[in-house]
Amino acid sequence: MEFSLHANRLSHESGTVQLMEDLEVARQFEGPVSMLGGGNPAHIDAVEQRFREQMQHIANDQTTFARMVGDYDAPKGNSRFITLLADMLNRQFDWGLTPDNIAITNGSQSSFGLIFNLLAGDFPDGNFRPVLLPITPEYVGYADVGIASQPLFEGHRPTIERLPDQMFKYRIDLSSLHIDKRYGAVCVSRPTNPTGNVITDAELDSLSKRCEQHRVPLIIDGAYGLPFPGILFKAAKPRWNTNTVLCLSLSKLGLAGLRTGIVIADTPLIELIRNGNAINALAPSRVGPELIAPLLPNDELLTLCRDHIRPFYETRSAWAIDRVKHHLGHLPIRIHQSEGAIFLWIWFEDLPVTSDTLYRSLAQQGVFVLSGHHFFPGLQDDWRHRHQCIRINFAAPESSLERGLGIIAQTVAALYP
Amino acid sequence: MEFSLHANRLSHESGTVQLMEDLEVARQFEGPVSMLGGGNPAHIDAVEQRFREQMQHIANDQTTFARMVGDYDAPKGNSRFITLLADMLNRQFDWGLTPDNIAITNGSQSSFGLIFNLLAGDFPDGNFRPVLLPITPEYVGYADVGIASQPLFEGHRPTIERLPDQMFKYRIDLSSLHIDKRYGAVCVSRPTNPTGNVITDAELDSLSKRCEQHRVPLIIDGAYGLPFPGILFKAAKPRWNTNTVLCLSLSKLGLAGLRTGIVIADTPLIELIRNGNAINALAPSRVGPELIAPLLPNDELLTLCRDHIRPFYETRSAWAIDRVKHHLGHLPIRIHQSEGAIFLWIWFEDLPVTSDTLYRSLAQQGVFVLSGHHFFPGLQDDWRHRHQCIRINFAAPESSLERGLGIIAQTVAALYP
Repeated sequence: MEFSLHANRLSHESGTVQLMEDLEVARQFEGPVSMLGGGNPAHIDAVEQRFREQMQHIANDQTTFARMVGDYDAPKGNSRFITLLADMLNRQFDWGLTPDNIAITNGSQSSFGLIFNLLAGDFPDGNFRPVLLPITPEYVGYADVGIASQPLFEGHRPTIERLPDQMFKYRIDLSSLHIDKRYGAVCVSRPTNPTGNVITDAELDSLSKRCEQHRVPLIIDGAYGLPFPGILFKAAKPRWNTNTVLCLSLSKLGLAGLRTGIVIADTPLIELIRNGNAINALAPSRVGPELIAPLLPNDELLTLCRDHIRPFYETRSAWAIDRVKHHLGHLPIRIHQSEGAIFLWIWFEDLPVTSDTLYRSLAQQGVFVLSGHHFFPGLQDDWRHRHQCIRINFAAPESSLERGLGIIAQTVAALYP
Repeated sequence: MEFSLHANRLSHESGTVQLMEDLEVARQFEGPVSMLGGGNPAHIDAVEQRFREQMQHIANDQTTFARMVGDYDAPKGNSRFITLLADMLNRQFDWGLTPDNIAITNGSQSSFGLIFNLLAGDFPDGNFRPVLLPITPEYVGYADVGIASQPLFEGHRPTIERLPDQMFKYRIDLSSLHIDKRYGAVCVSRPTNPTGNVITDAELDSLSKRCEQHRVPLIIDGAYGLPFPGILFKAAKPRWNTNTVLCLSLSKLGLAGLRTGIVIADTPLIELIRNGNAINALAPSRVGPELIAPLLPNDELLTLCRDHIRPFYETRSAWAIDRVKHHLGHLPIRIHQSEGAIFLWIWFEDLPVTSDTLYRSLAQQGVFVLSGHHFFPGLQDDWRHRHQCIRINFAAPESSLERGLGIIAQTVAALYP
């Protein structure tokens, strides 16, 4: 078979593809595996149990089951879920949403593909406008979704704050950041995947005001954040207004298999997402919305997040940091402040090899992490730092983490002179 | 918000978008509605009951449920489902498939978006190669998926065979059909959506040989066809070889809400679909594959199709034809031979208005059909016939069909002089 030029976009060079391939390599690895790559959420018993009861209820009810599996949902997504979600968000945050502000997609990655290509790229006035990422490291999944002829992202280098106890924190370098009409949109994940950074309310205020001033939409990727799943270990406020595009997901509640993304935005963008859903997939999957809708009217979803999901990951994060320090503390490492999400971001300062080489060496030993170099989409300079970090997923079972960290320690210790 | 040029592709002019919008208009219509548009499958009790038992089983099993909802599937789709499906197809048809020949997508529409843009469009040699549709009317959903700069489809006009009893049948005009390297791919739905035509084994043999001769891939859209859901009312053979791309779906089994598509093709295309899944959606939904996998090893899925799904639609088709003739038989209409799928295609010869005008008039009365003019993607000539047909979905409840046909009869009778 011969393939069109479009095939180049789907090549093995794609970061997303490489990372997803790793999942398969890990599955087929002979010998013990520590899967610390990927973004799979943990299985949290109390939460999973509640979802399972809900699915039992659906499976025991002929009418509800028939509707969930047998009928196409609306291309904009499940009307009942959307109405209940708008009600819940208005009740909690007084955002003044109507159902016309919400669309469902087949997961956040699908949301990003639609949103980035609609808000950035080639414009009717002849200009090309990229998406500005005010702070990199930033989520690898953004990098490949662009269908325009030019690179869709422009990454901005952060400042690094060195903290006691081998910790550090990135901050948006607001002094060198210029937001204006050159950009189609500005995007931040909050908490940040891969670093676990939570950009502060003050940073977000500054970004938001600059965006509004120049009428550049601000995309907030809340896949791990607010208001659900709420995997944040410090106080932070959720934020939405008509200049904000808030991307949420059911995945990190523990429902990654269902592929349900949520976009909250001004009506014209929601209409285009609806059209995109129709053309790309007729309609999104109906399972996630039908499963979760009953947990919205009484805020049970938020209660699950507050009582089970956040505490689980906060405890796990502290444990993982302790274990990293135990295994790697004698090496010149720093760990990014863990303020949210499900990852530790470890910086091996002056690492004698690239993080990609380290990643390959670890993979051969059955320890799968992610090399940090994937997480700098659109950053043009040759900052050495980008080749000195790895991301590990601390949602993995503790025994797997413990074993993996031991092997990382041995491997890295042998690399430093 | 300002939008990029990409937004034009997702505009209201899109046929798919218009049709999906109708579903919402119908939902909000005040007064009784006959929803005979759209492609929603019927709710068949015995089949739905079996699926529901299977979901109860999953919901009652902690491990299986946790895996289905909580874990990302592989970007190529569920390994276990794919292996069992390859085994089943080899057992039935001796196609020599390996798991590397099968990928899962978020529904057939997602499959088409990937496949058409990979096999057609702009090629490295500088040529633009469209997809040839050897027989139009053809599925409306194809029309909008192209991302290339030029129209992706070239439609071919069929011959019309007038049959007794106000019936007719389209045939591929093989004498005027030239397949060669100008085309990136050739595509047929079998049975055809919207007409219910099943291109014959002889027609398919001819297409297949011509395609192989010029190494042009032949895409067979089997969403309603073989080997499942098997909604065919005459004998026909399923077909696959390495030059064939067979697109299947779980939707018309009665699982449209789950969004599971299946592509069976040569390995290089499957690898690109895997990459496309990773970039577009990380992974497809896990629900459909987990639900249906246990029905593959013992051929239970095929038994359900043979014993329940095909008989239901065959009986319903005969009934619907009888009712159409009862209501409309006094008018100069013809019905396309109903050989498969879930639609009747009615031709109002010399209709004094366009089918689109008729559609609008019916919609105002709460009767939603599809105007036939949407179903001629890439047909360049101004054939009057394309404005003289409507598609009705006979999976709708009988009372709804009966009422709708009565209103269609009154409306059309008033139009003819």
